[in-house]
Order: sequence, then structure tokens, then C-alpha cells
Amino acid sequence: MTSIPTANDIQRAHERILPHIHNTPILSSQFINEFTGAHLFFKCENFQKTGSFKMRGASNAIFSLNPEKRLNGFATHSSGNHAQAVAYACKTAGINAYIIMPKNAPKVKVDAVKNYGGKVIFCEPNETARQEACAKIVQETNALFIPPFDDLTIIIGQATCAKELIKAHADLDYLLTPVGGGGLASGTALSVKYFSPKTEVILGEPEIVNDTYLSLKAGKIIPVSKTNTIADGLKTTVGKLNFEIIKNHVKEVILVSEDEISSAMRMIWERMKIIIEPSCAVPFAALLSKKTFFKNKKIGIILTGGNVDLGNLPFKL
Amino acid sequence: MTSIPTANDIQRAHERILPHIHNTPILSSQFINEFTGAHLFFKCENFQKTGSFKMRGASNAIFSLNPEKRLNGFATHSSGNHAQAVAYACKTAGINAYIIMPKNAPKVKVDAVKNYGGKVIFCEPNETARQEACAKIVQETNALFIPPFDDLTIIIGQATCAKELIKAHADLDYLLTPVGGGGLASGTALSVKYFSPKTEVILGEPEIVNDTYLSLKAGKIIPVSKTNTIADGLKTTVGKLNFEIIKNHVKEVILVSEDEISSAMRMIWERMKIIIEPSCAVPFAALLSKKTFFKNKKIGIILTGGNVDLGNLPFKL
Repeated sequence: MTSIPTANDIQRAHERILPHIHNTPILSSQFINEFTGAHLFFKCENFQKTGSFKMRGASNAIFSLNPEKRLNGFATHSSGNHAQAVAYACKTAGINAYIIMPKNAPKVKVDAVKNYGGKVIFCEPNETARQEACAKIVQETNALFIPPFDDLTIIIGQATCAKELIKAHADLDYLLTPVGGGGLASGTALSVKYFSPKTEVILGEPEIVNDTYLSLKAGKIIPVSKTNTIADGLKTTVGKLNFEIIKNHVKEVILVSEDEISSAMRMIWERMKIIIEPSCAVPFAALLSKKTFFKNKKIGIILTGGNVDLGNLPFKL
Repeated sequence: MTSIPTANDIQRAHERILPHIHNTPILSSQFINEFTGAHLFFKCENFQKTGSFKMRGASNAIFSLNPEKRLNGFATHSSGNHAQAVAYACKTAGINAYIIMPKNAPKVKVDAVKNYGGKVIFCEPNETARQEACAKIVQETNALFIPPFDDLTIIIGQATCAKELIKAHADLDYLLTPVGGGGLASGTALSVKYFSPKTEVILGEPEIVNDTYLSLKAGKIIPVSKTNTIADGLKTTVGKLNFEIIKNHVKEVILVSEDEISSAMRMIWERMKIIIEPSCAVPFAALLSKKTFFKNKKIGIILTGGNVDLGNLPFKL
């Protein structure tokens, strides 16, 4: 495999993106600590610019290139948080962002990308169509393709989130994130390896989209078969580079049901008074499903994002 | 009238309650600043213990008495944030809290008080019944009555919130709060008078429950006539002591419609990713209704609370 990024790579990425991101707050809840019997530190990427950690990877990809090299802008295919992050980071850099979206994408997501200055190109709602549309735009505009997770520059960018959490709380027993494509999960594993080697990384994954869980068992990537989870940010199969890092540096994947995701999310809304999206509740749901295991431990949890369509909630509160 | 509290009263109250409250964070939103053309600093009492600023007044009332004097606990009649705050502050002090609630109070509010250790006594859902039930409990238990707003100790406690905001941002042009009974509004007016005399205090009030607006016009208290607002914390008539202070130290009351309250609340949920209750959105709605007036100003807004029944939202998102 490609050699994995170094501590220095993460350090330099962090310096590079700091002007473009928030060092997000870390919150605790007395109620949740008492309820779980553990000491929890929530790193609130729902307060990140564009409402998710994706801003870190997108900023790193864009600002790691010289202005001449990024002159023609960037293109990506996504209808989620990565699209918003790429649009906003490109706007900051004063360049074009071309976002390929399926023509049935929810209006609220299209509007969010447009509000951040992204140029939306619609395609048929299937994988082939969106890859073709993206390739066509890249050819026409000379924009650079910016992948959502299976890319070292993206992974290094996402790694800066755990780095900030570890700097604030050096002695965590566990650090939990969700896993979808694995950008954040693999980045977190690297930051823990370099900056807090005694901490163990545990991932939460929806039962319905358990590809990372199955892949770790099989020792090779098993693609997703079903995607009907409310955790809409976690529907993708884990990426190749991401899987290599996760395989070597993650302790365990805990699977959670849809009901566990909803009720974990509701507890955070109610008790912490903050808005998180369903995908974001997955690692906390994982913790709640194994309370005895986590008892008395000091645990960091990355709350990945807060982009929810309030007019059309994808879950029952 | 009774002589008004001094700066020293507020300072001592703050020292007294600091172990029992959070010095809540102050958040800003780049989007909202650009949208309004102003510089806004939101003091997040939705993150306060028990989810609202009411914890400040209740703690001050309870901890300003010697342990012998508060031995028999406290009683109050409320189905809202004051009840939760009294229950929790009494639990901290190791004494009983007797909370009179109408027998038709929502289960979620009854449960919240019980979860904080309060003893709930039900009464008929009218003003006379709840005052009688409260008087009876006070007589039976020798508990002390703790009023929700029309009381100097409560006002001084609520004043500590603006004091913290002013300490963090000394040069505010305006400081905005909602007004219901006027505990927070009058306390805020006092802190501004003493600690930031160049700042002007402006109150937001629902059009439907415009008693403070009318009372200031009339120069005397005009009781509420209608209470069918979604801002369920602001249905009460302004208190006597509160009105005296507001009359002398508040610049203006801005009235807002129910739609303005909803859409202001939604903007804060969506853009700031925090949960606030409808009453809490009223001063921000007031600002949005007079954007030209507030343009380029530096403005503090107290976000008063975040206690919303998520399973039964009193508004359409």
C-alpha cells in the first residue's frame, strides 16, 4: 500500500487549514456523564464551518495546492456535507466549485451548495451517471477532482479534528467516531497513533450498512448491500486507503440499530441542547449499547455534523 | 418603591451562585452577522443547568439563606423553567422542593421536575387554585415560597447573566432580552446600568401578550388579556418590582408576531445548530424585524432557554 501519512503531515495540514476552520468547542453534559457512568468529551464539529468536519478535508485538499495549480477550481460528486464543504472552501479561495448532484437530490441540499457559491450540475441518480458527469466537467473546465474520503490529503485534513481533541484531553481511554467512507475514521486513527498512542479508537456503524464491520472480519472490503439507514452520511462503502488504515489502527467496530441511533440523537438534542444529524449520533449510540464496557472510562466522541433538514426530519423525534 | 438593588448586591449574588451555575458560552454566527449586518453575541443560557437562566435566580434565592433558615425547603407554583430550576437548586442544597402544578400540565414538564427531585403537588388549572395549593403547602411544611420573578433576590440572580455577557463584551450598543414576568429583563437593566451604562436595553415581547409594551405606554401595569402565543415562557403579566425597574431603565419594547418568532427560532436551530425554545427566539425576532435600526451595531442577545418537548413541538418547523 501507499505509505501512511506522518505526524508531521498532520501538523502541517493543521497549520494550513487553521485560518479556514473553527477549532470547535468540546462540550460535556453532567446528565449524560451520570447516565453513562463515564466521562465524555464531545468534539462539536456540528459547529464547524458548513456544519460538519468535512470542511477540514476539503480545506486541506484545496489549500495544499498553489494558487496557480488550483486556478480552475474543483469538482466533486456528492449531495451531502462534502459538497457544501468543497463549495465553501472554494469560495474562500476565490475559485469555482463544480458539484455533481443527482437530479432527485433534496432541494435543501441543492440550495445549501448554491448558497455557498457552488455551481450545481445535475445528473441521473446513479453511480455511473455521476462519475461520467464529473469526468465530463473535469475535462471541460480543467477543474481538479476532489474525492470525498479515499484520498490521503482528505484523510490528513480530517485527522486534525482528533488532534485538537487530544490536545485538550491528553489521557482519553477511547476515541469514538462514526464510519462511512472512512475519511474521518482513518484520520482519527492516525492522530491517535501519533499523538495519543494509549488511546484506542472505536467506530460506530449502522447495522444496516455494516460494510466496515464485515470488511474487518473478512480482511478485505465487502461493499455495502443495503443503504436504508437514517444515518445518511454513512451509506458509502469504506474506501481503500481508509480501510488499510482502519484495519491496522482501529480496535473495534460496534454496530447499532436504527432505534439506537434515533434515541442517542434525541438524548443529545434534549440534554445538550445542540442539533446533530443522525450519522453523528452513531458513535454515542454505540457507547450507550455497551455502557458496562465503557464505565468509568474517559472517552472522546467526535460529533461529526449538524446538517438536518428541519422541515423534513428523516426520523421521528 | 423599594430601593433598587446595587452593583454590590449583584456582585455578591454572582459570587454566591457561581458554584451552582455555568458561566455559559457566548456564541456568534458568521452567517447571522452577515444576514443582519450587525455583530451579534448570543449568551447561551439554553446551556445553563436545567436548560434556562431561571437557575440563576433560584440559586440566589436558595443560597442567600443560611442552611438553618432553608431547612424546610422551598415551594413554588410553576409548570415551566422556574419549577425545574427550584427543584434542581433545592436538590443541590439537600432540601425539599414542593412544586405546585396544574393537573393538566404536560407530562414532560412534570417528569422534568420529578427528575430533578422535586415533589409535585397537582391542583386545578386556575390561578386561585394554584395560589391556594401553594399557601397550603407552605403552611403544612414550613417551606418558604420562592416567587418566579416579582422579587428582588430573583431579579438580582437573573442580573448575573448580563453581567457575564458585559464582562466578555464591554462595548455593546444594545442588549436584548425577552420580557414575560420581567425577572430577566429587570435584572439585565440593572446590570447594564451599573456595568455598561452606555449600552441600551431593548426587550422583545410577543404581539399577542403585549402587556409590558402597553404598561410602559400607560405608565401602569396593564394585565395580559390573551396568552395564546407559542412563546410559552412569556405568558405572564409583568411583575410590580420588575415594571418599576423596566420603566426607568429600558429603552424600548419591540413587539413580534408568532410567525416572526417561529422563523427567528428556525434560523438559530439551522444556522447555529443549537436548540432554543420559542420564548428564547423573541429578542432575535425583534432584531430581525428592525434590521436597519440595528445595522452595524454591536449587540448582545440573551438566549434564555432550550427546554422544548421534542416529541410534541409547539410550532411547525
